[in-house]
Amino acid sequence: MRLALRDLTAYTLEVREAHTKLNQNESPDDLPAELKRGIVEEALARPWNRYPDFESSTLRNALAREYGLAAENILTGNGSNELLAAAITAFVAPGTQVVMLRPSFTLYEKLTTIAGGVPRFIDADPASPLLPARDMIRLASTLDGPLVIACSPNNPTGGVLPAGALDALLGTGATVFLDRAYGDFAGDTLPPLHDRLVTFSTFSKAWGLAALRIGWLAATAATAREIRKVTLPYNLNVISEAAAVIALRNRAGRDETVARTIRERERAGRALAAMRSVEVFPSAANFIAFRIPDAHRTFEALCARGVLVRDISSYPGLAGCLRVSIGSAAENDAFLAAIEEVL
Amino acid sequence: MRLALRDLTAYTLEVREAHTKLNQNESPDDLPAELKRGIVEEALARPWNRYPDFESSTLRNALAREYGLAAENILTGNGSNELLAAAITAFVAPGTQVVMLRPSFTLYEKLTTIAGGVPRFIDADPASPLLPARDMIRLASTLDGPLVIACSPNNPTGGVLPAGALDALLGTGATVFLDRAYGDFAGDTLPPLHDRLVTFSTFSKAWGLAALRIGWLAATAATAREIRKVTLPYNLNVISEAAAVIALRNRAGRDETVARTIRERERAGRALAAMRSVEVFPSAANFIAFRIPDAHRTFEALCARGVLVRDISSYPGLAGCLRVSIGSAAENDAFLAAIEEVL
Repeated sequence: MRLALRDLTAYTLEVREAHTKLNQNESPDDLPAELKRGIVEEALARPWNRYPDFESSTLRNALAREYGLAAENILTGNGSNELLAAAITAFVAPGTQVVMLRPSFTLYEKLTTIAGGVPRFIDADPASPLLPARDMIRLASTLDGPLVIACSPNNPTGGVLPAGALDALLGTGATVFLDRAYGDFAGDTLPPLHDRLVTFSTFSKAWGLAALRIGWLAATAATAREIRKVTLPYNLNVISEAAAVIALRNRAGRDETVARTIRERERAGRALAAMRSVEVFPSAANFIAFRIPDAHRTFEALCARGVLVRDISSYPGLAGCLRVSIGSAAENDAFLAAIEEVL
Repeated sequence: MRLALRDLTAYTLEVREAHTKLNQNESPDDLPAELKRGIVEEALARPWNRYPDFESSTLRNALAREYGLAAENILTGNGSNELLAAAITAFVAPGTQVVMLRPSFTLYEKLTTIAGGVPRFIDADPASPLLPARDMIRLASTLDGPLVIACSPNNPTGGVLPAGALDALLGTGATVFLDRAYGDFAGDTLPPLHDRLVTFSTFSKAWGLAALRIGWLAATAATAREIRKVTLPYNLNVISEAAAVIALRNRAGRDETVARTIRERERAGRALAAMRSVEVFPSAANFIAFRIPDAHRTFEALCARGVLVRDISSYPGLAGCLRVSIGSAAENDAFLAAIEEVL
């Protein structure tokens, strides 16, 4: 066993039963039954004893058409996490400096550590709607060939990169990984390709396909080829690939979910902010982080009322904070009623 | 981009159309239609917008029951490749000596190189039904804390570890990874747990579920916990998990496929050996490697007749060799007729 990993902890999630599950930033909407039925019919027609298409060509071509790219710019994987892990493996050698926000998605630090890289943290103020791009740019400028990992909107705080920040980060000479997992809820668009840019997108959030594990990355063909060297063959199973292709052909439902989630985020945010002693942080994602007296007791009291949120109070800079995913109107009402009662 | 990876090539497979596809060691039998139907009905009943069970408890418990283990001894993943990659990440630091067979499954060398380990090759004679355990043991004994990766039966040659070899390898103090991908066709059994042993198994071969990407590993609880630190969360999608659980409950079909594949392997091997100028290598797997004059031309001539085998002539020690997967009786007949015609 590698000694360097002895102190590492596994990515964990305490599993709890709840009728209102707002802890994993999932979409409140399942795919319509007729789409699910169409996907499984397609799956049934395929031979399950045969390996998936080696190139995932169908999905890569569908994504290329949708986003104005070529298939060679796209890699698909078993969730964007897998592609993030592959890209970090490809770019991070022992000693590589990796600039990342704190707090942010915990997997960045974990994967960087596994690869022997050196995390260089930039504190993100959850009270700001904008991520501290200036600090990231300043640090990146002082480093030799760093990697910058930015999640925009940032999980679990909700802030976004300011306009122009991505170009400025690339201007430092850094390689930039942009995690767009929550980008749909901020109305972002896929940035233009750049030699040193890799963007990560997922079907797990806005597309409502978390159960099927589908992610993709976009990069120049040369960069995609390099990352592909370290991905595993046959990483996307045939049912998930069919599901993503069919989902892309039916994006109206997804767009409705996103629009409703944004409206509900604003409504829930206002209701929460109106509550005594709750500090609500601005969010452009499908969740809201907030500070509340006695966060852990509040988390448990919400649980006891069947409402499961995420206790993020142990994250750096987030003492006393919880995060609630934006669910359906009814789920958000249940959350708001429960928290009002608890307070 | 890490300089160390510049020279690495991606795992590749030339895709060709063929009516008789015997190039990927797949099962010739799809799951029965009623089982597939049962699996998708279960899948349809689940919310696809929700993440999979964090622990894959249902499948891990089912495997534990089937193999007389506890769930804590088992990790599941998106194909055994993913678990192999995680285990190599957990055990191989820059400079770690990794003993492996040559030729063997190419991913071992690739993953070792990515992790900064040093591959130490032991030549496997394809003409021997037994793998060179004595050479592996001798080399492992001279190294400090090595990892030994053994694939038994070995892909692409077909030989197996001799009786007692696993214990002897463990006796050297080495950590041993045993890849049982083809073990079902050799009538192997899951070896007892050992502090320094990790076994890898798959649903892609004997179980006929290559399309759904399901693998698992068995290890002591402590080792499984360490490897889990470097696996990605939610690596097994809900449909694949349901498929594996339902497959385990219906193993009679699988056992029939395995028994028939073994009979067909013996039949095809005898027929091939009776052909002039073909040297057939002994195999305990669901494929046969053989040496033939002008292998590349033969490969192309078989392709032209709609029979796709694997050209393994560029593997070390396998100049002039091809590998044919054991398919259905009809597929094997088609292969035998085509190669007879070509010769």
